[in-house]
Amino acid sequence: MNQTSEAVEAKLCAASVAHLATADAEGRPLVVPLCFVYDGRFIYTPLDKKPKVVAPERLARVRHIRANPSVALVIDEYAEDWSRLWYVLVRGKAEVLPESAAEERARAIHLLREKYPQYRSGLLPANAPLIRITPKRITSWGKL
Amino acid sequence: MNQTSEAVEAKLCAASVAHLATADAEGRPLVVPLCFVYDGRFIYTPLDKKPKVVAPERLARVRHIRANPSVALVIDEYAEDWSRLWYVLVRGKAEVLPESAAEERARAIHLLREKYPQYRSGLLPANAPLIRITPKRITSWGKL
Repeated sequence: MNQTSEAVEAKLCAASVAHLATADAEGRPLVVPLCFVYDGRFIYTPLDKKPKVVAPERLARVRHIRANPSVALVIDEYAEDWSRLWYVLVRGKAEVLPESAAEERARAIHLLREKYPQYRSGLLPANAPLIRITPKRITSWGKL
Repeated sequence: MNQTSEAVEAKLCAASVAHLATADAEGRPLVVPLCFVYDGRFIYTPLDKKPKVVAPERLARVRHIRANPSVALVIDEYAEDWSRLWYVLVRGKAEVLPESAAEERARAIHLLREKYPQYRSGLLPANAPLIRITPKRITSWGKL
């Protein structure tokens, strides 16, 4: 992994939403917005109980990762003033954390609840499945 | 293509930013934020002259589409109140519009300049290359 600058680290910690791209075994991509937490090494994103139905894309995401662990995740913020645009792009490998990784899962869920008050009220059970992304390459563009 | 509801059409017309996922010939995905316009049938996104350097991802995007035309594009809006979350997901095929499609390109560039005042000042030359996305399936989730 490239060394990440302080500005990139700060964005990865502060952003509320990221967009995750996965692809199935035939290389057909999917992209979904999601909540995540970055612990300085890994990115964790839960398969949570967000409002309404479980969208099929949520399942597709997991199916994709199991067939093809390569993922890309971008964080960015739109601004009418385009001189202020930026993004941070993470490319890496994703996996669904196994049941056996109880300690790591508990730590990630703790971090997610610290970051998102919404997760403190039952939306994120202690046994929620989590996707862990291991960054292989982090690049950025624009005015961080 | 599925019939799209009025609410979905409205979101596709109003959103300022979308996230486009592509994948290379080996199925490694990429995701970038971008500006786009939807004309009720196709989605057009320019390879424009946004500030600063040309990020390698911009070139990667085109390389991906040439090797693998399957793409996914999502529009969404983050809200602290998660009962208001939504997204619209478009899956389809993308291609770089050929030089010969002069009329279509002129029309798309006109629509882009109408949508984004920023494009009226030289950032989007009349001969700017454009990616055209043909939606095959449009799905949505949450509170549109």
